[in-house]
Amino acid sequence: MIDWIAADWGTSHLRVWGMASDTVVHAAESGQGMSRLTRAEFEPALLALTSDWLPEDRITPVVACGMLGSQQGWVEAPYTTVPCVPLGNTLACAPTRDLRLSVHVVPGLKQLSPADVMRGEETQVAGFLARNPGWDGVICLPGTHSKWVHVSAGEVVSFQTFMTGEIFALLSEHSILRHSVSGWDEQGFVHGFDQGMERPERLLARLFSIRAETLLQGQDAAFARARLSGLLIGAELAASKPYWLGQRVAVIGAQTIAHPYATALARLSVPVGTYDATELTLAGLFAARAFLPQDQTPCAH
Amino acid sequence: MIDWIAADWGTSHLRVWGMASDTVVHAAESGQGMSRLTRAEFEPALLALTSDWLPEDRITPVVACGMLGSQQGWVEAPYTTVPCVPLGNTLACAPTRDLRLSVHVVPGLKQLSPADVMRGEETQVAGFLARNPGWDGVICLPGTHSKWVHVSAGEVVSFQTFMTGEIFALLSEHSILRHSVSGWDEQGFVHGFDQGMERPERLLARLFSIRAETLLQGQDAAFARARLSGLLIGAELAASKPYWLGQRVAVIGAQTIAHPYATALARLSVPVGTYDATELTLAGLFAARAFLPQDQTPCAH
Repeated sequence: MIDWIAADWGTSHLRVWGMASDTVVHAAESGQGMSRLTRAEFEPALLALTSDWLPEDRITPVVACGMLGSQQGWVEAPYTTVPCVPLGNTLACAPTRDLRLSVHVVPGLKQLSPADVMRGEETQVAGFLARNPGWDGVICLPGTHSKWVHVSAGEVVSFQTFMTGEIFALLSEHSILRHSVSGWDEQGFVHGFDQGMERPERLLARLFSIRAETLLQGQDAAFARARLSGLLIGAELAASKPYWLGQRVAVIGAQTIAHPYATALARLSVPVGTYDATELTLAGLFAARAFLPQDQTPCAH
Repeated sequence: MIDWIAADWGTSHLRVWGMASDTVVHAAESGQGMSRLTRAEFEPALLALTSDWLPEDRITPVVACGMLGSQQGWVEAPYTTVPCVPLGNTLACAPTRDLRLSVHVVPGLKQLSPADVMRGEETQVAGFLARNPGWDGVICLPGTHSKWVHVSAGEVVSFQTFMTGEIFALLSEHSILRHSVSGWDEQGFVHGFDQGMERPERLLARLFSIRAETLLQGQDAAFARARLSGLLIGAELAASKPYWLGQRVAVIGAQTIAHPYATALARLSVPVGTYDATELTLAGLFAARAFLPQDQTPCAH
């Protein structure tokens, strides 16, 4: 029997877990991300995955993180301003009609200068700190929008976002380079990374050479795709140097995305550990349960 | 009465001019770019625009530049290797069925190291040199793929391509930034350019701040869009410094795209002139007529 539901509701995906304390009992996901839903469509999208799990005789709390808490989401969970602990003590309550659940949303974090925002990653950071109490250092969360987060004394001190993942996707799928890239060859990654890290200011010039070397030198497509990733991650690591230099780094992500970052950081002799993102999201949402209101009534419309 | 046809056949567009010597008599264009056509569809696409112009009693030569000469085009016009004059003396003949025309394609240029290629811009460079004989310096051709071309003693010495225009289009129309950018505010361009030029290695970090400043500080969309352009052009100028430093620069492009480059170069105290791309394309194709074969029979299939 589940006693709460964990939800990670991003721009493009929804993932939910039926939980008994800290144990996963059910798991489900769908493509009903925030960007595809009007406000009224969030509750049906959630129920489509979880309705069968819900006991009829009580209210099951849902603890959710991610873009559902944005202005265009289900309910706005106003940002907490860094420096601060990754989880504030106020969850935003989303309006629901079904009497079997109440939905509570973790607020994101904002930084005033340089301006920056996150929604979802704060929960992974909280999960990491719950598992590694007293840890100081830098957390790297690669993804569509990679985040570098400086953590000290249990607080997020500062953070910075890089559009590396989104740019990689746009270039490899929608630009002229799409004709030249397919697959993955680790040697290509290392080649691109060294170029990108050494001369990041030449990024815009290097990109077209991927196309030209395919045309003129028959460059292998797997080499080319990994090289593109390496060039971009090299440029990201050059720009994020103030974050990682002299620090230990925890990379949080799925294996396919964490691996190149860990490889790159190891080449720079940065002490690095990798951690599974889903596991830490669940640990963070479990920690956020502490802030559920005592009174488990659904939120009013 | 026209005596030849000029054609600029790019990836996404076809533009044709019915010419009497160096005077434009007719002009037409369509969206039948190279990327949308199979080999057999080129001739119908050309005739759809020009059939009414063609005299019935003779063969009218068509001189064409651009991506129609690529491997995936109408006929491959193999690259000439730099250093070389911008127009080689061999045009590739495209196979045609209609007995009223013969089609001749200007070859592109390639550079072996660093690997680079161009198709179409060599014709603008040739047109520029035809209009400005003896000119030495650097020609900047901004566009989807900006080219920087070092010209000396009538030859293209070297060149480099930057994907600036394509990346601007992808980011402003298809990335998360699309929600934040619309219009144009010159002050935003200057702000972004100075940031991009000063710290090009931070490009990937600056991009997301455009989104964050919209969310947190209500940044104006016209300011944001021009700032994005400025950041990218700043990074391009930082990377192309070996080209423009200590040189005079001719910017060839339509007004809307040449203007920001000219503004940027002027901020760097680089002596710069701007020139109309269409006019120079026509001048270059006119120059290429010298290499038409004496025997004006259509090419065999």
